[in-house]
Amino acid sequence: MFSRRLKSLTPYVPGEQPRDRSYLKLNTNESPYPPSPRIEAFLREFDPALLRLYPDPWSLNLRRKMAGKYGLSEDHIFVGNGSDEVLSFVWYAFFDGRYGRLLFPEFTYSFFPVYCDFYEVPYRRIPLRPDFSVDLEAMIENGGEPSCGIIFPNPNAPTGVALELDRIRALMDRYPSDRVVVIDEAYVDFGAQSAIGMIADYENLIVTRTCSKSFSLAGLRLGYAFGNPDLIRALFTTKDSFNSYTVGRLTQSIGEIAMEDEEWIAEKTSRIVETRTFFSDALHAQGWEVLPSRANFVFARKTGLSGQYIYETLKNRGILVRYFNVEGIRDFVRITIGTKEDMTRLLEETPRLCCTET
Amino acid sequence: MFSRRLKSLTPYVPGEQPRDRSYLKLNTNESPYPPSPRIEAFLREFDPALLRLYPDPWSLNLRRKMAGKYGLSEDHIFVGNGSDEVLSFVWYAFFDGRYGRLLFPEFTYSFFPVYCDFYEVPYRRIPLRPDFSVDLEAMIENGGEPSCGIIFPNPNAPTGVALELDRIRALMDRYPSDRVVVIDEAYVDFGAQSAIGMIADYENLIVTRTCSKSFSLAGLRLGYAFGNPDLIRALFTTKDSFNSYTVGRLTQSIGEIAMEDEEWIAEKTSRIVETRTFFSDALHAQGWEVLPSRANFVFARKTGLSGQYIYETLKNRGILVRYFNVEGIRDFVRITIGTKEDMTRLLEETPRLCCTET
Repeated sequence: MFSRRLKSLTPYVPGEQPRDRSYLKLNTNESPYPPSPRIEAFLREFDPALLRLYPDPWSLNLRRKMAGKYGLSEDHIFVGNGSDEVLSFVWYAFFDGRYGRLLFPEFTYSFFPVYCDFYEVPYRRIPLRPDFSVDLEAMIENGGEPSCGIIFPNPNAPTGVALELDRIRALMDRYPSDRVVVIDEAYVDFGAQSAIGMIADYENLIVTRTCSKSFSLAGLRLGYAFGNPDLIRALFTTKDSFNSYTVGRLTQSIGEIAMEDEEWIAEKTSRIVETRTFFSDALHAQGWEVLPSRANFVFARKTGLSGQYIYETLKNRGILVRYFNVEGIRDFVRITIGTKEDMTRLLEETPRLCCTET
Repeated sequence: MFSRRLKSLTPYVPGEQPRDRSYLKLNTNESPYPPSPRIEAFLREFDPALLRLYPDPWSLNLRRKMAGKYGLSEDHIFVGNGSDEVLSFVWYAFFDGRYGRLLFPEFTYSFFPVYCDFYEVPYRRIPLRPDFSVDLEAMIENGGEPSCGIIFPNPNAPTGVALELDRIRALMDRYPSDRVVVIDEAYVDFGAQSAIGMIADYENLIVTRTCSKSFSLAGLRLGYAFGNPDLIRALFTTKDSFNSYTVGRLTQSIGEIAMEDEEWIAEKTSRIVETRTFFSDALHAQGWEVLPSRANFVFARKTGLSGQYIYETLKNRGILVRYFNVEGIRDFVRITIGTKEDMTRLLEETPRLCCTET
């Protein structure tokens, strides 16, 4: 009864959303802080009768708010039901195997190969450099073969390591201008440099964003993308061939409010960045290797401990972190930055982790 | 810069969502009534801090509420970001051109051919019977050729004409049990017979539903599907390869409330059914042909008037209806049933429509 396509799928596995007991959740890179308090006021006054009407399929008011915040016009902006949906449409619209393989880093967002299977796009994983940064040089080279596009997060996940803009600019200058480069900036607000300012210079650049991290709105489902108007129109064509109304009325309105409250975002992200420094230093002092992170998580390991052991032991103690059962990063765990109190609690547990099989 | 797939797309065009002036909107089959008043109470009390956490990717509480309401278990139920998204996943998971063409009625939901283009599924439109009902016999025959699936709305759109369950059962008894049949019951609450009770008898039957019509929640984006657990698992695999979190926290919670308030739904749908009878009779008395509708809209025409003329003239007078510029139904307009006051206003305009080019 199933399509051939379906039979070849191995779905993405999101971080656990446990229901059995209460955990300190440091496994899915959610913010420890609530979203803008203006959202509460909105929900108290919202007229539910409006829900009887379809939402604006073009999210025009929201895109105008975004345009103002980011210094672009609304025809440079696409919005979707979380950045995962935006990325899915990006795959459909721009990545076509007849032009070569899609390139992305060997260790990166684990949804990327899933999209490739879903849309039947061949891909190649490009190894990271020894410092765990994304190797853009190797992507351009690609053994002399053409590629149908490039995608990488900046900062990368699950490493947290960021690239400087001059390296990205060098990539864009050398990469064919008729193939699309996508930078997933889900975590950029935590200290990396954004490529949004380069949208005007490169017609083949897409930058994606999410409200799930710095905006504290993972439960809302709102993501967006920046790019030249031709690319944005292509994303709308894709969306309108899949589901006309992907972003509901409450989501659009709450997104507008979130875009306006810049002060709140700035204050909360700077707190997370401070806590990340505090936690990274403390973990380092306990003998861990911690990759330099520009995200709201750190990727860390300690000689003699396997990722699975750390994950399981901490889970037993009521703390969830994430590890990836993948050759090359099996000894790492990815730990979301919570409040200072959250991290202090974790730092009381980490010294008790000791010497198991790696 | 674009994929070959993208270049072949002709997106779905939803009914107008005008921004220039205020209209009486009878063009997108929205409910004239607000949703359950319990939703207002929920929004007043909802803690926005919960939005910092991802939603349950399996919508388990919501599916349990639906299971209770419809007398099935949660493993028979899938939920998505509107029934358009649910249908899109259905296409991906079950319809595969190597088994033959997909069959659907000649005049039906105009998103069906768009999904076929999106997923590259060949299709055949099966003409309606002379009474404008869906021709299930012709679908089973299909000129002796195999088909990869069948999909039709019941009641059908844009005609509003419904099929009796015994005809659907006859289809299921004769159609190959390894090909999926999908019945889109978006409008079933307005007086048609539901096939949900047949889910237990036919492993290859999917029934889709929406909260956009009888639940008055078009602005929320929530749709669902019923089927045997193998089919439902396939839909989850598809969803988890496209976007893990398609239904946000507010949407899941509001959906739960909507499922509970059965009395509200019953009262509002029966009012719409009454108004439909009143309006159909009045239009008929003005010399119109009105197809027998089991939906919250009617499909009607009057000799001497073209659909485009009716649409344009009414729009100039502040009333939006929908017409389809398609051979065979060009002289019809689809009119959503609003309140009795809404329809009375329209009935004051309709006698002024006169004799133009058809």
